[in-house]
Amino acid sequence: MDTFRNTTSFVSNSDKGIANKAANHMTKNAAKGSQARHDSLGSTAKQAATIKDESVDLLIIGAGPAGLIAACWAAQYDMSTRIIDRKRGPTKTGHADGLQSRTLEILESFGIVDPILKQGVPDVDTCHWATKNSEGIIERQRSFDSEPGGASRFGQVLLSQGAIERVLNDYLIRKGVVVVEWNKEAVSLHVSAAPDENPLLSPITVGVKGAKKYEERIHARYLVACDGAHSWTGNQLNALTDIVSEDSTWGVLDIIPITDFRILYLPAQNTESDRNLADIRRSCSINSQPHGSIMTVPRENRLVRFYIHLRDLEETAMQHPSCSPGAMVEMAKAIMKPYDLTYNHCDWWSIYPIGRRLARHYIPQERVFLAGDAAHTHSPKGGQGMNVSIQDTYNLMWKLAAVITNGANAMILATYDSERRPVAKTLMDLDSRLVQAYEMEEKDTSSGIYEIRGQYAGFIAGIDVTYSDSILVTGKETVDPNLARNIKLGARLPSFLVVFHCDGAPVQLAQRLVSDGAWRLLVFPGDLPIVLISVTYSRFSLSGGAAPTIEFLLIQSCPRSAVNLLDLPELFHPYDDFMGWDYWRVFADDRDQAYTGYGIDKQGPGCLVLCRPDQHVAWVGGMEDVAGLDNYFSIFIGSSR
Amino acid sequence: MDTFRNTTSFVSNSDKGIANKAANHMTKNAAKGSQARHDSLGSTAKQAATIKDESVDLLIIGAGPAGLIAACWAAQYDMSTRIIDRKRGPTKTGHADGLQSRTLEILESFGIVDPILKQGVPDVDTCHWATKNSEGIIERQRSFDSEPGGASRFGQVLLSQGAIERVLNDYLIRKGVVVVEWNKEAVSLHVSAAPDENPLLSPITVGVKGAKKYEERIHARYLVACDGAHSWTGNQLNALTDIVSEDSTWGVLDIIPITDFRILYLPAQNTESDRNLADIRRSCSINSQPHGSIMTVPRENRLVRFYIHLRDLEETAMQHPSCSPGAMVEMAKAIMKPYDLTYNHCDWWSIYPIGRRLARHYIPQERVFLAGDAAHTHSPKGGQGMNVSIQDTYNLMWKLAAVITNGANAMILATYDSERRPVAKTLMDLDSRLVQAYEMEEKDTSSGIYEIRGQYAGFIAGIDVTYSDSILVTGKETVDPNLARNIKLGARLPSFLVVFHCDGAPVQLAQRLVSDGAWRLLVFPGDLPIVLISVTYSRFSLSGGAAPTIEFLLIQSCPRSAVNLLDLPELFHPYDDFMGWDYWRVFADDRDQAYTGYGIDKQGPGCLVLCRPDQHVAWVGGMEDVAGLDNYFSIFIGSSR
Repeated sequence: MDTFRNTTSFVSNSDKGIANKAANHMTKNAAKGSQARHDSLGSTAKQAATIKDESVDLLIIGAGPAGLIAACWAAQYDMSTRIIDRKRGPTKTGHADGLQSRTLEILESFGIVDPILKQGVPDVDTCHWATKNSEGIIERQRSFDSEPGGASRFGQVLLSQGAIERVLNDYLIRKGVVVVEWNKEAVSLHVSAAPDENPLLSPITVGVKGAKKYEERIHARYLVACDGAHSWTGNQLNALTDIVSEDSTWGVLDIIPITDFRILYLPAQNTESDRNLADIRRSCSINSQPHGSIMTVPRENRLVRFYIHLRDLEETAMQHPSCSPGAMVEMAKAIMKPYDLTYNHCDWWSIYPIGRRLARHYIPQERVFLAGDAAHTHSPKGGQGMNVSIQDTYNLMWKLAAVITNGANAMILATYDSERRPVAKTLMDLDSRLVQAYEMEEKDTSSGIYEIRGQYAGFIAGIDVTYSDSILVTGKETVDPNLARNIKLGARLPSFLVVFHCDGAPVQLAQRLVSDGAWRLLVFPGDLPIVLISVTYSRFSLSGGAAPTIEFLLIQSCPRSAVNLLDLPELFHPYDDFMGWDYWRVFADDRDQAYTGYGIDKQGPGCLVLCRPDQHVAWVGGMEDVAGLDNYFSIFIGSSR
Repeated sequence: MDTFRNTTSFVSNSDKGIANKAANHMTKNAAKGSQARHDSLGSTAKQAATIKDESVDLLIIGAGPAGLIAACWAAQYDMSTRIIDRKRGPTKTGHADGLQSRTLEILESFGIVDPILKQGVPDVDTCHWATKNSEGIIERQRSFDSEPGGASRFGQVLLSQGAIERVLNDYLIRKGVVVVEWNKEAVSLHVSAAPDENPLLSPITVGVKGAKKYEERIHARYLVACDGAHSWTGNQLNALTDIVSEDSTWGVLDIIPITDFRILYLPAQNTESDRNLADIRRSCSINSQPHGSIMTVPRENRLVRFYIHLRDLEETAMQHPSCSPGAMVEMAKAIMKPYDLTYNHCDWWSIYPIGRRLARHYIPQERVFLAGDAAHTHSPKGGQGMNVSIQDTYNLMWKLAAVITNGANAMILATYDSERRPVAKTLMDLDSRLVQAYEMEEKDTSSGIYEIRGQYAGFIAGIDVTYSDSILVTGKETVDPNLARNIKLGARLPSFLVVFHCDGAPVQLAQRLVSDGAWRLLVFPGDLPIVLISVTYSRFSLSGGAAPTIEFLLIQSCPRSAVNLLDLPELFHPYDDFMGWDYWRVFADDRDQAYTGYGIDKQGPGCLVLCRPDQHVAWVGGMEDVAGLDNYFSIFIGSSR
């Protein structure tokens, strides 16, 4: 049963068919082993006749959450993109199960957060249980009421990866620009040397095998590998990985539990105020020694996810022929003693070993990018996996598209590594601190887990992630900190409720910062008469590329009536023969949230805030700092403007 | 061009093809004229051979908003329903364009409000313009900032009928129970005498002609006619209509306007505070004498709807061979003098005559129900048409389903007329007062329109609609007014934010009152220990019918931990072998909104609130008033229980 150790992702799925899955998996591994690395298909004439060649700008391998967001992003741009996955179709059940605030903001920026919010379980209470008594039975140690944070409009949503992938796939199908090709497996990879000599060349060749022995060669300018924990692409390139911790083994289970958890057992000495609550619908961590530990996550459709950390049991459990959801529920029940636990419906289950691993380079070779589980793995303790993965490709794709479609200098791509790898590093720290805290707490009465969670709250939510100075993020030292006291360079711009100038309708500013590839220059004039901002920024004339789109948005602090919308420079109300004037780029701070929230003085002198296509703040300058803005872009847009 | 006067709905559509449309229309009218009323198809043997016969519980004629909501409702029940429409497919552009609070609540109860909110234009400012000066040019008289009312979670949304029908049709297709049959025209109607002798008989026979001369006879137990302003069904039955006013003629136009409306013209004497605003994106009424009057409604995708009231111009305009959107824009421009108005894109336009008419009986014959425009027509001034129509069938269908599927006494159906006809009567009053106010204001400086709008605000939003005492609404006199001081018998239950007992997740109570056919008994125990409410209400044993579903929901005022969820009667956490326990029927008033909002004392003595499937309050009683609840149901559920 060594295949369990080599799985690229979860190895078993659903109540049935585990033997088949394992057999399939072994075949795949065997096939992989027999391939020479860096070897393209078609070495004989006979084969060549049946192989199709196609050139694309971008190839994405893997259509999990990271790959799908990459495809959603790519679909905004005028470039050729393909996305392949060796699976037969999208994930249906199981796998990851939580979305944090920032991920929900990203989904909203594609206009697809509503179906996620509708299906998922929103912010729920969290509790911690442990064996702290002489009887070896668990007791509730601590609990926290659900408390939506104020830093994002969104809290946390618990929902299966399958439901999330469905929403992303539906979006791609509706959009019709990039659609996932299932049943297509990458079987060879060749990256030609010195790819940078001509940026329009396609140095990457991927041999692809379809369901019916159909073979083709995809020639790509860029390759994004979202192919999971044991990345095939990473293996082909001998990408180096730092192993931060050895594998630990987890049993994962989605069931509709039938349990008296925190209902029947009420020891007299228990004086907690919430002793009556049905903890099975709260998010619990249960640490029961020597039986092991569990995390429970309440989910959609009455399901509850159980993560069972199989410490010393792992080999036994995995080698036992009766390894089944039933056996796992028995393990969980032992941990949850004295409570009962049974089930009649199991939606999905799996046992998998996982360690903390971090790719040493996110760009292991020029033009090739690792993202998601292919770049980092860790325990499910922080509820982070799918989120950090989605945020990876959300960070990467607009940069790639700027290079491919707008002729931006390819040196901006290095920021993918410098911005995202530190996030995964922090995640490794968080994960190891959480695991330590769980282990410590048997001896100690202080609940370190919650302190750590509190300390990392903004990181876990994804909203505190701040990218450091680079070609794409201006250094603090060059910016007057009084212009916008609460805006952090490199962090995503928080959103506030403003109203449209034209009709008074309220709108969250973030709803205007959609993921369509545009940069946004937010103009906060304070009470100054609107400066006629130089229009040169709206169009960069580049050699060999189109101009990056910059939308100009104006947020005025004065009453709506003080400004005549059509008196403003046309940048703020562009005209189109068919669509007429665009009235939706000028806002008023009528709800008194934005200026205060951003720390910008209403009385002036005002400021300019440049947001990247991913809503992270790139630059902040004074109202007339055209030179600063110019300077920001000129570094990577090229000298000719 | 007399066909314009006979149109059953709008007569022209889109920029092109008016001649065709008119010709089609005349053909249809001619065909109708040649049919004998109350005459079924198939009088010769030859015809009979090609005619299919099918029996259904319910036939809906017309798949506009009223018919579609009827179908969405019917799809919740175990009964056979068909819905036919002679059109080729759903409305694409134009027609009605506004949804009020209550309609949005209804859409939410089917889980389909999100795509409406996403596409539409939310609450915008309103302004009024008129010619009050010697130059005969218009001036802004008054304006009101957008102000979302607190009485509903929803404000107003401006969106084309086409987009709304699309959402309803998509819902029906997903649900797959009742799907619209387009291209099927009712051509004959026969209602047999004394239909009530056996409620299971199908006294209604409708002959239906398909696109390819296909004919069938549908035998239905009940018929709901949503077939528009000049209802074919109403005509067949000689249904009587009160004509409240003569026709007036309206030009209707959806364009992307290009205009300087309130931008260029700033007379020196104008001291208004909002003189700079771009009124074209605000909701305006413009009264320009002698040119006529306009209402503008800002809409999705940069469109603006223009309603042009063609007072004296009507005959000329309609008979003029160049009757076109261009000509209508010229008319609008004359009214909007001194502002300019042009367009490059026209989405839809029409000219139609309409008067205030009200069906004298909503149930013109046993088993036949008129709804929507078939029951009432009026000017577009109040923005009510689609709303009152949707609310008609939303009121009717659960009653019909109770009779068809639950063996409820058919006498409850009379409440459709007694509840909904008074609403249309109030609408007639509102409409005529608005029209008068527009006419008055030329002579008067007071802006009566806004006073009327203010006075009718709750009615216009749809949330003040309160059904009077009947078999389905308990009389005030039998209820202790101190039990729930702010709950109005017969009105829809307002919603407040509560939290789920099981996990602390916040939820609007209304989100639990979905349109699935269930009644809800809301139990507000105050701080009393939970009374073990008699479980007899959960199941009524009826002769020949299934039990109506009653869901029991508990909203506790005490802290969540004071109550052990599974200690409550099983009514509040029903168990199912597959689905386990239902933890989602018990709520706590942790956000301190519900008890205060409903005017129920937190200290007790508590009360019971019974909501009908349409969320209107049917009955309020004391915590132990099992007899009162019993009495409510026994009247129409039958004697045996």
